[in-house]
Amino acid sequence: MSDNNKRCAIGVDFGGTFVKMARVNGRGTIDARANFATTDLKGVDGWLDEVERHVEALLSDLPADTEWTGIGVGVPGFVNYEKGFVHDLTNVPGWRSVPLADLLTERFGKPARVDNDVNAMAVGECTFGAGQAYRHAVFLTLGTGVGGGLLLNKNLYRGSHSMGGEIGHVSIDMNGIESATGRGGVEQYVGNKRIVERALQVIDSGRASTILERAGGKREAVSPKIISEAAAEGDAVAVEVFDFVADCLATMMASVSYLLQPQAFIIGGGVSAAGPVLFDPLRKHLDARLSHHFAKRVVIKRAELGNDAGVIGSATLTFLE
Amino acid sequence: MSDNNKRCAIGVDFGGTFVKMARVNGRGTIDARANFATTDLKGVDGWLDEVERHVEALLSDLPADTEWTGIGVGVPGFVNYEKGFVHDLTNVPGWRSVPLADLLTERFGKPARVDNDVNAMAVGECTFGAGQAYRHAVFLTLGTGVGGGLLLNKNLYRGSHSMGGEIGHVSIDMNGIESATGRGGVEQYVGNKRIVERALQVIDSGRASTILERAGGKREAVSPKIISEAAAEGDAVAVEVFDFVADCLATMMASVSYLLQPQAFIIGGGVSAAGPVLFDPLRKHLDARLSHHFAKRVVIKRAELGNDAGVIGSATLTFLE
Repeated sequence: MSDNNKRCAIGVDFGGTFVKMARVNGRGTIDARANFATTDLKGVDGWLDEVERHVEALLSDLPADTEWTGIGVGVPGFVNYEKGFVHDLTNVPGWRSVPLADLLTERFGKPARVDNDVNAMAVGECTFGAGQAYRHAVFLTLGTGVGGGLLLNKNLYRGSHSMGGEIGHVSIDMNGIESATGRGGVEQYVGNKRIVERALQVIDSGRASTILERAGGKREAVSPKIISEAAAEGDAVAVEVFDFVADCLATMMASVSYLLQPQAFIIGGGVSAAGPVLFDPLRKHLDARLSHHFAKRVVIKRAELGNDAGVIGSATLTFLE
Repeated sequence: MSDNNKRCAIGVDFGGTFVKMARVNGRGTIDARANFATTDLKGVDGWLDEVERHVEALLSDLPADTEWTGIGVGVPGFVNYEKGFVHDLTNVPGWRSVPLADLLTERFGKPARVDNDVNAMAVGECTFGAGQAYRHAVFLTLGTGVGGGLLLNKNLYRGSHSMGGEIGHVSIDMNGIESATGRGGVEQYVGNKRIVERALQVIDSGRASTILERAGGKREAVSPKIISEAAAEGDAVAVEVFDFVADCLATMMASVSYLLQPQAFIIGGGVSAAGPVLFDPLRKHLDARLSHHFAKRVVIKRAELGNDAGVIGSATLTFLE
């Protein structure tokens, strides 16, 4: 590894609506940023043109003694990491079977890495964030779904076709909610929309709650954030909803603990912003679902890099090996 | 690695009632065997004396040009593999906090390895049995409980305190059967006794079945083996019981697939002897519980080393690294 102070990489966090880019230095901090909308571009070539334009801007004030060592991209979909090949991006039309790493290296003459977005975030958190101290850690991101990244023996473990870490599909009920990925997958219970649905259901049953009032009386304005604020102020329905979310997550985390015995779970994503109303019952339920030998040896931590985990992690992919 | 034809190791499969020993050569085959009862020995020292006596016998006809390279032990309990230290053997009195690898090296002047029995079997199957072709494989043993061994990147993965791979505690129902290790652990549904209980329950409800007749009319003589024989001949109750066992296992295996994406599950242990009445519904249910992308990429195989997996695997531990 060359001098961390004298090198940097471009990280690209490729989201369904926005692409975030950053110049990240070897200590994992961001020296420059850029953003553009994913939507109005013409396919892969239009996307590459836009990325190139921003790379030039991001590097325009690069100190003469600093080397840029590569470009890393985290994408929302299935990827072959070894080949830097994008199989399919569910929510971005025109992205099927794209040899993205090769295309980037052709454009920039630099090494390129492509991984799925959650793996990139996990690499960021485990290299420069909450997971730095651990040899074995499981990164979770709680949002629309539940994403996972597995740090085993200090390396991201991807499975036999780069498809592992799909922790949101781990079943917590063999007779539970059906989806395209099986039955009872934990994200069917704790995804953004499910949390809101559950709160509205309890309210509809006639229980008193401040949740609707906080949403200006509009059902469609109820969000996990509003529910967590209500829970923080003692709203019984909101507290119950987060207790249930925590117990569902704890069921999955207990299974993962028995299987992999990570030293820590690092939890990020929008829903994790709920803070203690989520993390306190999570610890309680995980302890109840694990034997003492396992419970006392596993830490639950909040992720530290927030919205920057994606760009920092994507850049970090190029620092590895 | 020295010439595989010119070396061997002693493998010790330490069971609750019997200790099986073997001289295993570098190609993974057994050249000599020994057994003794676990029960009538005086603690750790008595056990070591007996092992020493048998090691001498096993090596008595060792060809002059063959080197013996070490001794490996698989034990029924918690172990620190790195240190070769036995924390506790649940069913063997007097075995708490035993530095077994050190004691063995002291006696024999050779490197010693100690691992839990299921890990040793997994190493055996993945080095010389059904798992040889794979980089990532999950070994399962079905018996009183459900044991697991994880081969990730061609190495056995043990987790942060050598306690990982406890696949029998993976939950298939967050509100399911309670035990000391949580709720809904898969072994609470598919362990030996549970299979028998379930069959008897269905029979008690009045359904016609040949199971009791096959057991000579004695409830206490009903076993997974008898139920599997009934299933193989089309007994509807027995078929249903194995279909349920298969679906419980498939729920756990789907979760493990989404998490680790192994290339294969290698299944051994007494219950696996049921054959097609277990493996056919297992494949069907696993396919139903996985997305096509995962289902088509995972193999289910029967273990190949049978009752020798333990001794072969224990010896193999000393061949590694």
